[in-house]
Amino acid sequence: MLFAWHLPVPPYVRQRGNKLDITLLLQGSDLPQQVFLRCEPDNEEWLLTMTAREAGEYVSYHGALPLTEGEPLRRYCFKMLWADRQLWCGPRGLQVIPPPQTEQFALELPGSQPEWAADQVFYQIFPDRFARGEGKAPLAAGEDYLAWEAPLKAKQGSSAFYGGDLDGICARLPYLQRLGVTALYLNPVFTAPSNHKYDTEDYYNVDPRFGGNDALLRLREATRAAGMRLILDGVFNHTGETHPWFDRAGRGKDGAFHHPDSPHRERFTFLPDGRVLDWKGNAHLPKLDFASQRVVDSIYRGPDSVTRYWLRPPYSIDGWRLDVIHMLGEGGSARGNLTHLAGIYRSIREENPQAYVLGEHFGDARRWLQAGVEDAAMNYMGFALPVRAFLAGVDVAYQPAQLSAGQCAEWMESYRAGLSHSQQLVMFNQLDSHDTARMLTLLNHNTRRMKMALVWLFTWIGIPCLYYGDEIGLDGENDPFCRKTFPWDEQRWDAGLFDVSRKMAALRRESVALRRGGCQVIYCRGETLVFVRTYEHETWLVALQRERTGECVLPLTPLLPSGAWICQEGEGVLTGEADYLALSLPAESATVWRISAQG
Amino acid sequence: MLFAWHLPVPPYVRQRGNKLDITLLLQGSDLPQQVFLRCEPDNEEWLLTMTAREAGEYVSYHGALPLTEGEPLRRYCFKMLWADRQLWCGPRGLQVIPPPQTEQFALELPGSQPEWAADQVFYQIFPDRFARGEGKAPLAAGEDYLAWEAPLKAKQGSSAFYGGDLDGICARLPYLQRLGVTALYLNPVFTAPSNHKYDTEDYYNVDPRFGGNDALLRLREATRAAGMRLILDGVFNHTGETHPWFDRAGRGKDGAFHHPDSPHRERFTFLPDGRVLDWKGNAHLPKLDFASQRVVDSIYRGPDSVTRYWLRPPYSIDGWRLDVIHMLGEGGSARGNLTHLAGIYRSIREENPQAYVLGEHFGDARRWLQAGVEDAAMNYMGFALPVRAFLAGVDVAYQPAQLSAGQCAEWMESYRAGLSHSQQLVMFNQLDSHDTARMLTLLNHNTRRMKMALVWLFTWIGIPCLYYGDEIGLDGENDPFCRKTFPWDEQRWDAGLFDVSRKMAALRRESVALRRGGCQVIYCRGETLVFVRTYEHETWLVALQRERTGECVLPLTPLLPSGAWICQEGEGVLTGEADYLALSLPAESATVWRISAQG
Repeated sequence: MLFAWHLPVPPYVRQRGNKLDITLLLQGSDLPQQVFLRCEPDNEEWLLTMTAREAGEYVSYHGALPLTEGEPLRRYCFKMLWADRQLWCGPRGLQVIPPPQTEQFALELPGSQPEWAADQVFYQIFPDRFARGEGKAPLAAGEDYLAWEAPLKAKQGSSAFYGGDLDGICARLPYLQRLGVTALYLNPVFTAPSNHKYDTEDYYNVDPRFGGNDALLRLREATRAAGMRLILDGVFNHTGETHPWFDRAGRGKDGAFHHPDSPHRERFTFLPDGRVLDWKGNAHLPKLDFASQRVVDSIYRGPDSVTRYWLRPPYSIDGWRLDVIHMLGEGGSARGNLTHLAGIYRSIREENPQAYVLGEHFGDARRWLQAGVEDAAMNYMGFALPVRAFLAGVDVAYQPAQLSAGQCAEWMESYRAGLSHSQQLVMFNQLDSHDTARMLTLLNHNTRRMKMALVWLFTWIGIPCLYYGDEIGLDGENDPFCRKTFPWDEQRWDAGLFDVSRKMAALRRESVALRRGGCQVIYCRGETLVFVRTYEHETWLVALQRERTGECVLPLTPLLPSGAWICQEGEGVLTGEADYLALSLPAESATVWRISAQG
Repeated sequence: MLFAWHLPVPPYVRQRGNKLDITLLLQGSDLPQQVFLRCEPDNEEWLLTMTAREAGEYVSYHGALPLTEGEPLRRYCFKMLWADRQLWCGPRGLQVIPPPQTEQFALELPGSQPEWAADQVFYQIFPDRFARGEGKAPLAAGEDYLAWEAPLKAKQGSSAFYGGDLDGICARLPYLQRLGVTALYLNPVFTAPSNHKYDTEDYYNVDPRFGGNDALLRLREATRAAGMRLILDGVFNHTGETHPWFDRAGRGKDGAFHHPDSPHRERFTFLPDGRVLDWKGNAHLPKLDFASQRVVDSIYRGPDSVTRYWLRPPYSIDGWRLDVIHMLGEGGSARGNLTHLAGIYRSIREENPQAYVLGEHFGDARRWLQAGVEDAAMNYMGFALPVRAFLAGVDVAYQPAQLSAGQCAEWMESYRAGLSHSQQLVMFNQLDSHDTARMLTLLNHNTRRMKMALVWLFTWIGIPCLYYGDEIGLDGENDPFCRKTFPWDEQRWDAGLFDVSRKMAALRRESVALRRGGCQVIYCRGETLVFVRTYEHETWLVALQRERTGECVLPLTPLLPSGAWICQEGEGVLTGEADYLALSLPAESATVWRISAQG
């Protein structure tokens, strides 16, 4: 047997001047005669000979990856050679077949993505439902808001307004700081008829219901004072039908809908029969046509494009979440999608090289991430979906799904193998969102499992984002019921969920291993899934046990050292033996241990 | 147990008006309660309900994929639902986890790639070594060619000229037609000092040694008369040092090397210390800098760019093979690679929508193919490397590699799962090339194994390309020895190899299943690898047996019907039983059977 250990973090990878020092550890009775560091600075294979050094029970192999040539993304793996055979080592372990190009260890050179993002704990707010600012008045004569406590009704749809606003968020920043939140993602805030505001009417003005641009300025100042980041939701695939470019109601003089000669006509796709292409059959959401130079200039290319405008002072937002970004394109379809996303990305980077560009993808986002047109994706496919399938037994379409721990790990590990470590650190992990049923509801209000989900969220690789209210037990079926108002009466909170959320956020803030460490599943069988997070001398061990109680034996390895493992959260019991750790895990539990081998 | 059958070809897929009728066959005791056709016309998931129909031992499920919306590439897979679980069916078979976006069944809509390419048998010619035209005179006083029979010497390197030329190729077209070749790929022909001409001096003139532009016109006319296609080798990553843009010798007035103020200086990357970035340390191959608008215009964007010029009459070449295309980029690196390749691809398509764009990639080409910047790749990674590892036990670096039939199949099947069926049909399969040792040499002149390789080449999915001389047993180590002159004395040929090559080319020409059929490995264990090719009512069964004799039993399935299997090539024996086929295979054999279930 041969065992190999490597993660793309210290101590296995260290930058030294213009090189990355790379270490691979091997153990076994039949060690290879030669080990190569296989890299491809300009997409062509280099095999760099690694030098071996005895290191106790292991042999360590060392190589240096030059950083002076090539592209910012450095991919590498290891090739091991015997007299008559070879093996490869990549993020999926040892294999006979060379790993795919996009499934190697991979690091972005510093400076090529926002440095701050990986350290955040995000919080997603649906502004109409989170908090109402003081002294809020109805918007206009005859208009009024529903009572904060009034139950949602299915039929109200997108026209039920509860009066949450940006000043309400400002007022609740102390709550969010107590929880440990360091960054906000707001659902759309620009002027639009609906409560969700994905039907933009004006890209340059915050909706008066939310307090207008002045309220955004106040929120920006308040978040800055609190050391909090702020990203907004950019809806560029379509506008709303009330946008003056489209103007279905015919209020203006040159809206595309009523005026075939309108200069804005080219911004949408009108069929010969007069129909206009929209987003998924929603006639009030006409799809923008990026074949139009006007659209391209308005949205991203022009000097005052929407993407640029809000990144500049005084708003200086820290990034964009880009709605249904894989669908955007030309002629009513996704044609030219990657070209336009590259343009959007460039426009954002030009304004702020540290801006965070987050794409919404319900499905597999790897094609977009590998194309480098976004920093990260809403990680439904690599996190939320396998976690839900494992814990709640349902998939994205709420259809039944059954996963063993092994299948769940296979899903999560194979997905992230297609992303660089740098990308994995900034993937946007959520349990749920405004577009899904709440996790707690999917779990039939099983709070033990909800705690498992929360611990997983805060310890897995990527940025954790709480959807407002998840931390206090807010429940709800799919839209509109996942958009309930936040209950500010603490009597109605689930204190256990709040405590575990706050505790995990605090642990994460203190730990570079949780924020930036390597991640590896080390045990997955039946009901039990165990993984480590590690960076330099610090290692975290996270054990998830679904049904029944579980026992597992984990051999000591470089990733799982012996020593003083300290339980940080949960009810599992860890017993250290001479050459293994034994875990004893209660049913429906998540337990977290930490060790620091330094000194 | 549940069994599923589907391939992205008739009878499983049929275009009917604006829809693709799609059929999935299932067999098993616990059939799903619902089956969905999962597709994503604009990158967002649709689940279309399929209707079930009893079909003998199977249940067939039918769905219709609309073609009126969405992008030309249609990806789909199948989702199967039970009361408490689900399964997915994609090109890798049944699985619990949804397949990655890029590993689904996938078809390009007609018209989005060259229709003619899949039907070809290509032949690669290194022009200096294939054939010398009649009456060839030395080029200039004092210059002369080596005798055609003179052995190659390692030290001669790229300056040994044997005098092969384009008129020589013209004269040998009857030979190529006899062999069954329908298309030529020529190594570079443009003026350059070396024999290989990857050091371009003039992109607009064929080298005088090869007969100049007039000889290319004669070859173009002769190939057209013979119904043969012709593609040329485009070397756009770098020029040669004698190109007037660079002009290391200082012959001209404004070469970049001697004139820092030269308008051509920006075409290359000069470092502050005066060094210039080149291709992999070859100082005579300065790398073009695509950050220069002059380079972009000269190579692809300008109205008379190199890519466009040769696609136009009177030369009207049928496509470009693009040298080291993954390395091309800005500032001496691969930066901006995909953007420029998209530009090159667009320029070629604008001149000839049916041109074949073939990228050279020694490694994994899927990232480029998935980005749509080329039609196909030289299929080292998906064909030549696994075939060599399996048959010859060596890898791309000539280091030892051991593959069982199962590992070999895993390699080939997993690789092509990342490509659309349409791309797979036009991948450029070769056993060797001017850049590798000859297959026969890697096989230690084992002609039984060489026949296996040839049969594999002609029956596997993709375009077969013979490297000149492979078909008559030309051997040779790596460059320069893989570039021997073609021995026109038939006494020196291996008649057995020629016969199998000619026979397989003829079989392929007659069979739509071999040219355009689906492909699936149906048995792979130890030394035995068996696959089928199928289209409509025609199926081919190909059995490769490496060491020892082999016996295998193959259950009858929709992909492997019962009936009159007729042996087309090889020594294996097939015995049809009531519900299986039994194969008996000699050591080191490739056997091919065919069945036509129609009528």
